Amino acid sequence: MKVGVLGGGQLGQMLAAAGQPLGIEVDCYDESATAPAAATGAVTVGRLSEPEKLRGWAQTVDVITYEFENFPSSVVQPLAEYADILPSVRALAAAQDRWHEKRLFEQLHLPVSPFRLARSPQDLALAVSELDPPVVVKTRTGGYDGKGQVVVRGRQDLSEALALVEHSEVVVEQFVNFDSECSIIGVRSTRGEVKTYPLSRNQHRAGILHASTPWAYPETVQLSALAMMSDLMDHLDYVGVLALELFETDGTLVVNEMAPRVHNSGHWTIEGAKTSQFENHLRAVTGLPLGNTEPVCESTMVNLIGTTPPLEALLSVDGAHVHLYGKSPRPYRKLGHVTVTGRSGDEVAIQVKALEALLS
Amino acid sequence: MKVGVLGGGQLGQMLAAAGQPLGIEVDCYDESATAPAAATGAVTVGRLSEPEKLRGWAQTVDVITYEFENFPSSVVQPLAEYADILPSVRALAAAQDRWHEKRLFEQLHLPVSPFRLARSPQDLALAVSELDPPVVVKTRTGGYDGKGQVVVRGRQDLSEALALVEHSEVVVEQFVNFDSECSIIGVRSTRGEVKTYPLSRNQHRAGILHASTPWAYPETVQLSALAMMSDLMDHLDYVGVLALELFETDGTLVVNEMAPRVHNSGHWTIEGAKTSQFENHLRAVTGLPLGNTEPVCESTMVNLIGTTPPLEALLSVDGAHVHLYGKSPRPYRKLGHVTVTGRSGDEVAIQVKALEALLS
Repeated sequence: MKVGVLGGGQLGQMLAAAGQPLGIEVDCYDESATAPAAATGAVTVGRLSEPEKLRGWAQTVDVITYEFENFPSSVVQPLAEYADILPSVRALAAAQDRWHEKRLFEQLHLPVSPFRLARSPQDLALAVSELDPPVVVKTRTGGYDGKGQVVVRGRQDLSEALALVEHSEVVVEQFVNFDSECSIIGVRSTRGEVKTYPLSRNQHRAGILHASTPWAYPETVQLSALAMMSDLMDHLDYVGVLALELFETDGTLVVNEMAPRVHNSGHWTIEGAKTSQFENHLRAVTGLPLGNTEPVCESTMVNLIGTTPPLEALLSVDGAHVHLYGKSPRPYRKLGHVTVTGRSGDEVAIQVKALEALLS
Repeated sequence: MKVGVLGGGQLGQMLAAAGQPLGIEVDCYDESATAPAAATGAVTVGRLSEPEKLRGWAQTVDVITYEFENFPSSVVQPLAEYADILPSVRALAAAQDRWHEKRLFEQLHLPVSPFRLARSPQDLALAVSELDPPVVVKTRTGGYDGKGQVVVRGRQDLSEALALVEHSEVVVEQFVNFDSECSIIGVRSTRGEVKTYPLSRNQHRAGILHASTPWAYPETVQLSALAMMSDLMDHLDYVGVLALELFETDGTLVVNEMAPRVHNSGHWTIEGAKTSQFENHLRAVTGLPLGNTEPVCESTMVNLIGTTPPLEALLSVDGAHVHLYGKSPRPYRKLGHVTVTGRSGDEVAIQVKALEALLS
């Protein structure tokens, strides 16, 4: 069985590493022969703008999936002639367009913060006054890791947001005054079986995920997120791993956005769960039975952003599992992550402190 | 940092997989371009009988290690000109010759079963009568997974053993009437730091390891094995992972043999321990700090020998981590292993039964 992955970044790398012991070959289509995935799996070099190359690659794989959601549907859809595309192009499209995404959440009665679409500076000004600022203004398409979004605190604070709406339609959402940010990762098989990992509590720094800790919420919150995930996946007839980012306030959840792929906040599952999100994604898209998503120990994942401490220092942290992606340093770039495991939450928390001291 | 591994079997494969997230490149020297290691790391194709190729390869790596102990010292020693060899050729030589190995154990006051060297049929007959049969007759060099050894129950039962001694010197050992077989895996750094994994209880079938379960012995037995490992490693100024196979009778240990490398009975450490034996071997030979060897959950490893059940069936076992080596089936060949993890020993035992039902 050969799985083609659109994109060869660290997510492609970790998918390839998960496939190898199962005999599932992973081949990533990426612009660069030195993309992170090259360290573990094959990389087929090509651009999205080279349809013949892309078609040639698609003909060599059994199923196509992606590690990044911003591939145009118009590029992905024609590949369905050669291989199954999972998750479906419909799911991909829903996640690419923040307006459609929010409307889908609303249609499924998932809790969302009030929102408006703005196509012009006038629309924007109206939306801001209607929504009771602060609001968050996000480009309708594109954008990730906090890029393409600004917080507007009042009508006098529109200049940055106006710059966004000049180039693109924007979605304006009422700011959620959350207690915590979290995410749930689910996986659905070709037979419609759904499994979810426990909610991760996520900390962001400068709009980029800094740390994720599973198992941090009471069961009622967990069950509420599970129900949302299940409704969403069933509606989309989804196959593969789906991540849903949420805001939590006093035990109540509001949906922020979804990612139709393996997700940074699920990297702890490599060492911390019975089956990793990467293995479960591969199991799902190849029609194999899903693996158990229960944690086997306590864990916290911490991202390495911009620079990486010396390997020797990272490895001195007790219970640290170091994952370097082989990327050159650049400000705000995800260069790797470290998952700290232990038998108790306290044990993990102490080592996470030691790890964070290396990052500051 | 680039680590050269002599041999590209499944141990080379798992060393390469462990090195990848740390940015440690692994290159295996093997006769076959399709050796298991090719699935995860580079394989340089060459024979031991091609000294120029071997030298050329040695010049491209920083440190040389091995995944199999039967490489002649005369082949390995000259490579020291180009790269560090760890564990040392001295440790390799000690493990290759059962006579020297037993004498070393004796010299270090490690408990061994009474033994004799036999160079001729006359020596053999004398040894058998002196040692109070049953005895085990093993070729002095070579042999693994029960090959090159026979059990002799009395003087009338010598024919198979005589066939061995015609071709090779043999070591004759008094048979140990053990309650269980077990092994301890230790790792020692370039700075002399020693860490050990908990003893694994090992079950063999037809002389080949069938299953390993860590954490199965009381602390006194564990401490006794740890002391032996520590004495042995310090004496050899050992660097890397060393496995010591033992017999346990009523809580008392007798040393059987050692393997100067990562070991099949330590495969459970990939998912079951804070740091796997593969990562710890790489950390040791590259001069990095050793990782914590504590288990984070309960686990049992089961080998896939001769044939492999369908992947779908294996993956239906809850908590199963499947590792296929990509080798073609052949009777008694190790084709893969499955480690079952869980939060309790009972949970693991139930799933191991389900797994074993697939193998029978």
